[in-house]
Amino acid sequence: MRVAFISIGDELLIGQTINTNVTWLGKEFSERGFSIQKIHTIKDDKKEIVNTLDLLLKDADVVLITGGLGPTKDDITKKVLTEYFQTHLEMHEETLERIENYFRSVGRPMLQSNIDQALLPVDAINVPNEVGTASGMIFERDGKFVISLPGVPYEMKHLMTEKVFPFLEDRFEVVSSYYQTLLTQGIGESFLADRISDLEDQLRGEGLALAYLPSPGYVRLRVTGEPSEEGKARVNYFIDQISQRIPVYAFGRNNDELSSVVGELLVEEKATVATVESCTGGKIASEISKVPGASRYFQGAFVTYSNDLKMMLAGVREETLIEHGAVSQETVTEMALGGRKVLGVDYSIAVSGIAGPEGGSEEKPVGTVWIAVAGPEGVTSKKFQFGTDRNRTIEKTVGTALNMLRCVISKINFEKSS
Amino acid sequence: MRVAFISIGDELLIGQTINTNVTWLGKEFSERGFSIQKIHTIKDDKKEIVNTLDLLLKDADVVLITGGLGPTKDDITKKVLTEYFQTHLEMHEETLERIENYFRSVGRPMLQSNIDQALLPVDAINVPNEVGTASGMIFERDGKFVISLPGVPYEMKHLMTEKVFPFLEDRFEVVSSYYQTLLTQGIGESFLADRISDLEDQLRGEGLALAYLPSPGYVRLRVTGEPSEEGKARVNYFIDQISQRIPVYAFGRNNDELSSVVGELLVEEKATVATVESCTGGKIASEISKVPGASRYFQGAFVTYSNDLKMMLAGVREETLIEHGAVSQETVTEMALGGRKVLGVDYSIAVSGIAGPEGGSEEKPVGTVWIAVAGPEGVTSKKFQFGTDRNRTIEKTVGTALNMLRCVISKINFEKSS
Repeated sequence: MRVAFISIGDELLIGQTINTNVTWLGKEFSERGFSIQKIHTIKDDKKEIVNTLDLLLKDADVVLITGGLGPTKDDITKKVLTEYFQTHLEMHEETLERIENYFRSVGRPMLQSNIDQALLPVDAINVPNEVGTASGMIFERDGKFVISLPGVPYEMKHLMTEKVFPFLEDRFEVVSSYYQTLLTQGIGESFLADRISDLEDQLRGEGLALAYLPSPGYVRLRVTGEPSEEGKARVNYFIDQISQRIPVYAFGRNNDELSSVVGELLVEEKATVATVESCTGGKIASEISKVPGASRYFQGAFVTYSNDLKMMLAGVREETLIEHGAVSQETVTEMALGGRKVLGVDYSIAVSGIAGPEGGSEEKPVGTVWIAVAGPEGVTSKKFQFGTDRNRTIEKTVGTALNMLRCVISKINFEKSS
Repeated sequence: MRVAFISIGDELLIGQTINTNVTWLGKEFSERGFSIQKIHTIKDDKKEIVNTLDLLLKDADVVLITGGLGPTKDDITKKVLTEYFQTHLEMHEETLERIENYFRSVGRPMLQSNIDQALLPVDAINVPNEVGTASGMIFERDGKFVISLPGVPYEMKHLMTEKVFPFLEDRFEVVSSYYQTLLTQGIGESFLADRISDLEDQLRGEGLALAYLPSPGYVRLRVTGEPSEEGKARVNYFIDQISQRIPVYAFGRNNDELSSVVGELLVEEKATVATVESCTGGKIASEISKVPGASRYFQGAFVTYSNDLKMMLAGVREETLIEHGAVSQETVTEMALGGRKVLGVDYSIAVSGIAGPEGGSEEKPVGTVWIAVAGPEGVTSKKFQFGTDRNRTIEKTVGTALNMLRCVISKINFEKSS
């Protein structure tokens, strides 16, 4: 089944917005066995939209349009599509009610432009939007579908997942492959490839495929095979083998998030956690707490950006700071132990590092980070070099700290890993 | 002058790579006054490339192609363009020498496929690539240009900046437009449109353009006009007018970030800040601290997820929690005042809310958030309804809390805003 995307919006053409929508859509569609033919990015312009539709409908079974559905004057997609499919707009009472409820729930008055968002083309399938005010629309012609969705990524993804993919999967028989993704943290792509090169040769020999999908601090490993029972079993066999080879790095599968994996371990153990953070400024705590239900194990955190607060809140000794500095094994150990005691938790994560761009030295260059986890069985700590980019260092520290906690709870020897 | 981009590569279609090349190109071309007509992302496929060129050359003066110039078999752009422009390949000695030098410098052996990269079309202008092995090419036909560059972002940007833009600027007299972007937080697109509808009519009447670019919690407003002195003055006039109309929401321009704007205000005031966070779990602190140099004003934070910690750390009274609950004006006020005192700062931000999905009630539904800022002149506090999505509520709380602090420091009445 062939799919084409149209992204509408000047902001995409002049480089003011990165088009992450098509990246997400490309991934989701291809994982479901659809073949993506092309992507056209065009202006909010009637003639452009019409010409592009004419062109893409020649080759594609599904044309998906994102953008141009907002309440303001420069959003023309709904009007153009209504004309293109020779239908007309009518007030959709259910949608109007939903928009009214939405505005009531956020306690704001409703404007004419919001009411107008409930005007929908009568010959299109309505895709109700529970997370925003612009409805999606599905038009059909000669067995082909034109789908129009809002460009706001959050709304688009929600409508795709909840409504549009189920709709398309009902109507198209796609031959998909079977794949599983192993998630790793803290090991680079080439090191990973080196560690598993024999397994990679073996799986390729069996006709399976392996892809490395890196992002800062993380590498996802995707193994793909046939959708038969035998094919599935081989994919899972290799995922297990790779996972067992690298227990320190492999933290989950498919859509797992490291913070949720850690959360589940804490729930199982009936244990609580807190953080004492310097260079990450509270980001580890916010990662832990963004998981629904985190209040079962997450107690709180100290962000001790200044040395005064390291002493006052976490009980780091002044001598330790003077002798070893804030970024040292001694300080981060005292932070972790102090946090564990004062905040009254089972596990305490502490980090102290130099995110940069200022503050580096010969001995401790920018990117030096110490991480410690204090638990019922003592303190685990390790030093890292995360490079010169401030945000990357913060990101990598957050991921590594969570992964260290995972290893400590699971009794995987983290300190000895290389 | 009209430009169109062609991005070649399956990895872009299946969502394995985000197409940041076109974002960079869009920005650079539009800043130089070129008008970007459309962007086509297509497969490494001869027929696709030929058809797309035929189509785009009808409307565009310049077609820029990125990708498909690598040494592997699936890279066919050079071959297809050579045929399309009815020319042939010849060994380019200078380029061969450059590639040989390159391989010597990285200490790697040279393969036949690398030698073949020095085969260049005789009727194209060669764009030597000093930072990689794939040369760029410029073809001309009937006064129009087709430019082919490697897809590696670093090489593409280098060739554009050093070679292609100078080449194009020599040949085209471009009339650029001038634009400025006003950044707002905390007001929806339609409310914003309603508040400034007279200004919008007025600027459109003068031939200027206005675009709304929304993202969760934020709307960017772009005003575009002529690049003349008069045009620039009109654009800036309307940006100022809009900004003055909505002082509570308008926090900056162009590439400003709210956390940096707040940071600059704190530096100017020589003031310090800390946070006491419940539902945001440390995310406000991490936003403040991600700005380079934040240690000049950021002291630290309490994440008081549990009620015990709200009392123990921030000194919230037990009676307050019992009488009014954790999500109340009284509690958040005590959190802000307690944080300001204990952490010894000039400004303290406190938030308490129900991010969900659990924990809501009739009286305080999921999405209810109280935010307070304690400063030298007292406490400002306000209640918000951010809807039912946990992550959106956290995001909006972070943005709104930072914006509230901005208003408090700038003596803008935040509580009275609607």
